[in-house]
Amino acid sequence: MSAEDVEKTSSEAVKGLKGIIAADSSICLVNGTIGKLLYRGYNIDDLAENATFEEVSFLLLNGELPTATQLAAYQAELKEYRSIPAELIETLKRLPVSAPPMALLRSITSLAGVYDPNAEIETFENRLQISIKLISQIPTIVAAIHRIRQGLEPVDPDPELCHSGNFMYMINGEKPSEDATRAMDLILTLHAEHGLNASTFTGRVIIATLPDIYSAITGAIGALKGKLHGGANTEVLKTLFEIGSVENVAPYVKKVREAKGKFMGFGHAVYQVEDPRAKHLKELSRRLGEETGEPKWYEMSIEMEKLVYEEIKRNCNVDFYSASLQHYMGIPGDLFTCIFAASRIAGWCAHILEQLDGNKIIRPKANYIGYEERPVIPVSER
Amino acid sequence: MSAEDVEKTSSEAVKGLKGIIAADSSICLVNGTIGKLLYRGYNIDDLAENATFEEVSFLLLNGELPTATQLAAYQAELKEYRSIPAELIETLKRLPVSAPPMALLRSITSLAGVYDPNAEIETFENRLQISIKLISQIPTIVAAIHRIRQGLEPVDPDPELCHSGNFMYMINGEKPSEDATRAMDLILTLHAEHGLNASTFTGRVIIATLPDIYSAITGAIGALKGKLHGGANTEVLKTLFEIGSVENVAPYVKKVREAKGKFMGFGHAVYQVEDPRAKHLKELSRRLGEETGEPKWYEMSIEMEKLVYEEIKRNCNVDFYSASLQHYMGIPGDLFTCIFAASRIAGWCAHILEQLDGNKIIRPKANYIGYEERPVIPVSER
Repeated sequence: MSAEDVEKTSSEAVKGLKGIIAADSSICLVNGTIGKLLYRGYNIDDLAENATFEEVSFLLLNGELPTATQLAAYQAELKEYRSIPAELIETLKRLPVSAPPMALLRSITSLAGVYDPNAEIETFENRLQISIKLISQIPTIVAAIHRIRQGLEPVDPDPELCHSGNFMYMINGEKPSEDATRAMDLILTLHAEHGLNASTFTGRVIIATLPDIYSAITGAIGALKGKLHGGANTEVLKTLFEIGSVENVAPYVKKVREAKGKFMGFGHAVYQVEDPRAKHLKELSRRLGEETGEPKWYEMSIEMEKLVYEEIKRNCNVDFYSASLQHYMGIPGDLFTCIFAASRIAGWCAHILEQLDGNKIIRPKANYIGYEERPVIPVSER
Repeated sequence: MSAEDVEKTSSEAVKGLKGIIAADSSICLVNGTIGKLLYRGYNIDDLAENATFEEVSFLLLNGELPTATQLAAYQAELKEYRSIPAELIETLKRLPVSAPPMALLRSITSLAGVYDPNAEIETFENRLQISIKLISQIPTIVAAIHRIRQGLEPVDPDPELCHSGNFMYMINGEKPSEDATRAMDLILTLHAEHGLNASTFTGRVIIATLPDIYSAITGAIGALKGKLHGGANTEVLKTLFEIGSVENVAPYVKKVREAKGKFMGFGHAVYQVEDPRAKHLKELSRRLGEETGEPKWYEMSIEMEKLVYEEIKRNCNVDFYSASLQHYMGIPGDLFTCIFAASRIAGWCAHILEQLDGNKIIRPKANYIGYEERPVIPVSER
């Protein structure tokens, strides 16, 4: 290869873009060394205890927590958008129920864009409106997927209920307890945002070509679907099912260690100390374990957390207690990633709005390691 | 903010990841300085003259041009996959025809994944099979979108025709001329691959979380939909329609210059000299202009290329002559980006296969520029 062929610099490729700073962002600070997570400057512990997901999603989109007047208007807007076009429900009913729920969510979200006559992103007002619509409607789509897969009719949203209470109601078809509503609200709050993770980064790369927000969110759902990203708590529940009892935890941990296997729900790419989100889910898992009279899943989790830490000195992450908690809430394991999407939609939209403010197309380079120039030989002579 | 809050290094954010080398790749070399484009070591000029899109897509996926036996097997496989599930056609017929074709393509491609019972990516064989299926089926989906939007029935694929001839046939409903088949084949060959552009990069970011290939392609289609990426040749045709005659080109160019406006189809982010793909499309545009007895669109393009170069010393890019050429082929301007997708699917899949070989999740960092830690104030006091 001649010198002028070579565009590459002397640098090597940065696999996974590890350590590369791809954007300035004022949405989220993750400090993995001391286990601190801030949304727009607010500590996740403070938000978990003193704010609702409605406030948190408003905060992520707008940069500030809402005043009482702003919150009332935002709640009204969320409620107004809750129903999705009947055609989407009809389409969903015709799809194979055996398909992965995240493939259904990806498709129906894309179709929601087809049915939105005003998906333009020219003005900030419109971008914000579509974001609020998606935060409102992803739970409706997720609940409809869940119901239809079980052969049940989807449940119409109830305007009397808050965002999280209504989500639980649309999933289970009955008014949720206060603790169940609180559990869903906490799950949505804790998963709402986490910096330039793979799905959020996907959303930013897509929106930066200036298509529409549905394109960016559809892509983000696809990225979240991957087992290296959104699928971990599903695996935790599978593990708990496999173990089956508190007594079986110790032999299971021993067996995995001997086989040099992996413990799902432990360790984190960013947090070197305890994931600050885990403790909130742990406490609610304990309470719902008591409430449902099935403390076993919580107790197994406690035992496993203790034994795994003794073995490998790794803390559990946000996925670990979310598994037993969501199981107590009546949510099947293979729907967990869809619940994650119903939460992270707030962070995705916040990042999309931020990207569109001073946008630049995102296009890195590749380090060419292929063939030097060679001539095409006719197929008859190959 | 205390020192331990700060994860960022002293570096600034690299907006758009400009100049960052995100991957080693043996698929494509783009040398913008001398205007050279290689697919797997083969010069695009050589491929344009001496290979078909069937050979080129095989090359991109497998790294080598096929032998006669391999090509026959590959052609048979492409043909076998051409028909899409009848449910997808039915769904398409129910969708609003006013929706952007790329929003329809994004949705139907996502749904094709829902209908594929074997979308697993565990083995290379399966990944390759899904890639070939998508290369075969995206044209079928695009043609169906085109027909249904016009109130026409989709045309069943014709196994007697090659990939590009069949694509033209499914679009127009009649057997294409040799030149029209050749024109489509050239368009597909020339747009098939171009390094880590935004849609290809999107596909790699998504697949790196290990979801499934449909998720990655759905996201890539969303990115290609953006006007900063796949939409340029549509804009060129709009411009030609607006100008309307050869005599009007000079006043148009003058007017745009005076308004400091932009000439669509000129200049390129990477090529500082002539885009090596442009000349091939130019020659075919000339021939189809003659063949259709409407040389006007070609002649206007020639005039515009000359005058814009005189004014701003910018060469036309691949999008410029593809506009008049596709117009001659009976393809409406708002379908051009879908045709682009039917070509780039080959490059997307090649990059997805490459990413999966030694995969690492793609997760850059953000430079936090937001609020220091602040306490949540109750809503009643805000």
